[in-house]
Amino acid sequence: MLNLESLFKLSCGIYIVCSKKDDKFDGCIVNAVFQVIPEPIMVAASVNKQCLTHSYISDSRVFTTSIVSDQTPVSVIDTFESKSDRNTDKFSSVTYKLGQTGVPIILDKTVAFLEVQVKQTVDVKTHTLFIGEIIAGQVLNSEMSAMTYSYYRDLKQDR
Amino acid sequence: MLNLESLFKLSCGIYIVCSKKDDKFDGCIVNAVFQVIPEPIMVAASVNKQCLTHSYISDSRVFTTSIVSDQTPVSVIDTFESKSDRNTDKFSSVTYKLGQTGVPIILDKTVAFLEVQVKQTVDVKTHTLFIGEIIAGQVLNSEMSAMTYSYYRDLKQDR
Repeated sequence: MLNLESLFKLSCGIYIVCSKKDDKFDGCIVNAVFQVIPEPIMVAASVNKQCLTHSYISDSRVFTTSIVSDQTPVSVIDTFESKSDRNTDKFSSVTYKLGQTGVPIILDKTVAFLEVQVKQTVDVKTHTLFIGEIIAGQVLNSEMSAMTYSYYRDLKQDR
Repeated sequence: MLNLESLFKLSCGIYIVCSKKDDKFDGCIVNAVFQVIPEPIMVAASVNKQCLTHSYISDSRVFTTSIVSDQTPVSVIDTFESKSDRNTDKFSSVTYKLGQTGVPIILDKTVAFLEVQVKQTVDVKTHTLFIGEIIAGQVLNSEMSAMTYSYYRDLKQDR
């Protein structure tokens, strides 16, 4: 028997995963980003196939993960939450800089970021696991705490 | 440039992953256990190939994840930390019960557990990602907090 609450006990965060295609950018909210192996350091992100970001990562083979804090405005999270809104320029309302690969890193109260070169992809039904090596990673606001998935869930329920 | 501290900002837990081979059990500490997709719910665990548990999961295609709390005795964590000690009966010094598949679930101040049937395996250099469907999952101590990786790291550094 499965009690769904048991699943929520797994440590889980909230991340904005961005990628690019030519001169276009996209980003979406992802909660499964994790370190797969320690040496060489490789991380994975599980991205919904319906997200435009998914198609951009598949094409460019690079992505960034912006680790938002519990001080990141809800409006920023909302901007990247819509799975398939391909007509809005999500980046007009947020602050960002470009990483080494030209992919955006969100700067609105972001704790840290990672920039990843994809080395393996794994098809898991509705999602693809993009597994890659870290090209760059920096702490941007060391005094801030990363937003947890449970905090995010409470935030959404309170609205 | 990579500052390793940025990587530590990813949400990350501490889990005891167990499996079986015939009438033998093994378990090891894993920090990458996460939900890959929401529907059907599938989770993944990244397990070091040097762990005996790795060979047991490869063979039996089932594993449990015991989500330890910050009240779980350090001695329990230590018991499952050794990667390749194949001569010690790790289960003689801990409390456990068997799940539906006959795989142990650790009960020493465990917050919750998940029992997983492996459906896909992914080779990632030193580790294998075991991806599977949840057969069972229960909260055992809802008032306790899951141990985070940063808590665990501090615990180890303090010794």
